[in-house]
Amino acid sequence: MKATIERATLLKGLSHVQSVVERRNTIPILSNVLLEATAEGALRMMATDLDLQINESVPAAVDQPGATTVSAHTLFDIARKLPEGAQVSLAAAEGRMTIVAGRARFSLGTLPRDDFPVIAEGELPTSFEMPAETLKQIIDKTRFAISTEETRYYLNGIFLHVADDTLKAAATDGHRLARVTTPRPDGAEGMPDVIVPRKCVAELRKLLDEVDGSVGVSLSPTKIRFDLGQAILTSKLIDGTFPDYSRVIPTGNDKILKIDPRGFEEGVDRVSTIATEKTRAVKMALDRDKITLSVTSPENGTAAEEVPGEYVAAPFEIGFNSRYLLDILGQIDGDMVEVHLADAAAPTLIRENDKSPALYVLMPMRV
Amino acid sequence: MKATIERATLLKGLSHVQSVVERRNTIPILSNVLLEATAEGALRMMATDLDLQINESVPAAVDQPGATTVSAHTLFDIARKLPEGAQVSLAAAEGRMTIVAGRARFSLGTLPRDDFPVIAEGELPTSFEMPAETLKQIIDKTRFAISTEETRYYLNGIFLHVADDTLKAAATDGHRLARVTTPRPDGAEGMPDVIVPRKCVAELRKLLDEVDGSVGVSLSPTKIRFDLGQAILTSKLIDGTFPDYSRVIPTGNDKILKIDPRGFEEGVDRVSTIATEKTRAVKMALDRDKITLSVTSPENGTAAEEVPGEYVAAPFEIGFNSRYLLDILGQIDGDMVEVHLADAAAPTLIRENDKSPALYVLMPMRV
Repeated sequence: MKATIERATLLKGLSHVQSVVERRNTIPILSNVLLEATAEGALRMMATDLDLQINESVPAAVDQPGATTVSAHTLFDIARKLPEGAQVSLAAAEGRMTIVAGRARFSLGTLPRDDFPVIAEGELPTSFEMPAETLKQIIDKTRFAISTEETRYYLNGIFLHVADDTLKAAATDGHRLARVTTPRPDGAEGMPDVIVPRKCVAELRKLLDEVDGSVGVSLSPTKIRFDLGQAILTSKLIDGTFPDYSRVIPTGNDKILKIDPRGFEEGVDRVSTIATEKTRAVKMALDRDKITLSVTSPENGTAAEEVPGEYVAAPFEIGFNSRYLLDILGQIDGDMVEVHLADAAAPTLIRENDKSPALYVLMPMRV
Repeated sequence: MKATIERATLLKGLSHVQSVVERRNTIPILSNVLLEATAEGALRMMATDLDLQINESVPAAVDQPGATTVSAHTLFDIARKLPEGAQVSLAAAEGRMTIVAGRARFSLGTLPRDDFPVIAEGELPTSFEMPAETLKQIIDKTRFAISTEETRYYLNGIFLHVADDTLKAAATDGHRLARVTTPRPDGAEGMPDVIVPRKCVAELRKLLDEVDGSVGVSLSPTKIRFDLGQAILTSKLIDGTFPDYSRVIPTGNDKILKIDPRGFEEGVDRVSTIATEKTRAVKMALDRDKITLSVTSPENGTAAEEVPGEYVAAPFEIGFNSRYLLDILGQIDGDMVEVHLADAAAPTLIRENDKSPALYVLMPMRV
């Protein structure tokens, strides 16, 4: 293979691709990016960790079509350090790839393209389009609740499912739950329930920053593909059953607090200064239109702050993990949030209002 | 004690002071800041790690003079999270300090001010003024060469000494040496040779960013004090003998390379992409007005780049640790640097020209 490509184009493509490649690999070829120069004047790049695969295609002047694989991180670092505006020539032959730009010349060892593992997509019978903005919102409002506990692998992603005319996305770690509801896209009817793994979510979110318009989504019960124009992301889905989370969403909580999310957030943040890694609990004492936040730490001392809010139900006290509460409040964009409470031991519902696409459930802590 | 202080004033003072306090302390009071409200309307703050002490004085409305000590990091975090423009009232009594600002109220445990250790300065017979800019330059151009090897504790700082009409600052880790020469300030004559510890250098450098004009320096053979106006930094000096570094500075290197430091730096940075943690060596092949930089890594491959330079002596090859070479080139501000070479095993001298206050010595590596 022999091709010439503008440094900025190469760099941008590689920046997407190298991010999928793990820093440490026991299988050497998984450190590499597959480069393929096509007769049609494109340089195709592909990287994989065996669960997630990215394909990217950028324009290049191709002298001689062909393909090889080289270290993704090394090639990315080289492209990053080359001078702006440089023309980069890539040539592969006899187990080496030569990279020449200006007066600099690199030679990297290659591995055969035929050894490069490709995720077999198989049939992806469900297929729909979704605005990039909607997909961003789904991810931003749910990903913080994804579990990182590897033993609960079925919680290590965002659960997508269709219910009636809606597409719902949910994530939970057992302590908190986040759910976003959007209109069901055309073509998503009859779609299987799927769990999109955290790493795919993270890479997708990064790529979405560069996408306007819409994203093509295709899926089967075991694979999902996101078509983002220049880049295509294909991921295995988590092979597990997401719990029936709807049973956790309280419907009868009758103590309603309406509060400015910014003042609430700042108050929680301030009093939790006193909290230690071990005790993250913040206590909320609710009284008529008066909410008192407090934290007591045997090591550090005490903190209390009164925040104004609309509350007319019976006074009571409840505790929450302050970091979980802050995570949720950080997702609320408007100037009012509803907190639906029942008692000190019951799951609490948090949402902007009954029309907001996102809702959150937070388990209380004993304080 | 009882005092009220503007949040921004408190925060700025604490930001300086808390930085001296180590995150982990076996002696509890070392985690604390000493706060003293004076009848003259000042809040004095002091922190120490037993080697380095910072004193800071800020204006405050004092209702009741007195002193106490509380956790420096906790108080700093509280001040950081309080709303902008808040008036903060501090009141200490019976083993607790209360901090009130707006609707937020904190209570922190205190330790008695009498238990707070103070570094006894003793006599500081040498005393002079130095422009803050000069002190910044001395630190910036030498600190990267300070050794981090704890067994060579006498290299863990910047060596300051007077020679004739000059004040010289030097740092070395045995692989590279940096030295800055400045005119001897009035009052520095007869000054003892001292080694200023790395942590003192780091804190001083941060504080210098907020200082215009000049800094008062006072010292004895065992202590040094920097008077920066609002803040005073007092440090123990390293009790050891700095090696006679002047013997390492080559004077007879007759192979002179003159080169653009930016092109040189970028070339070294690029070819060293291929270098691994283990082998950081970059090879320089010098030929008439032609310098070829190269790196060979058994794992990654090879890289080479030709950079233009003025060189007329006999061709030869020499190797350097690429990171050390980049550290030095990063200190060169002008558009030309002189590299004085002898042979592949001899210390190499690097400087902007024979008038520049800074010079660097770099030991070669076998390649």
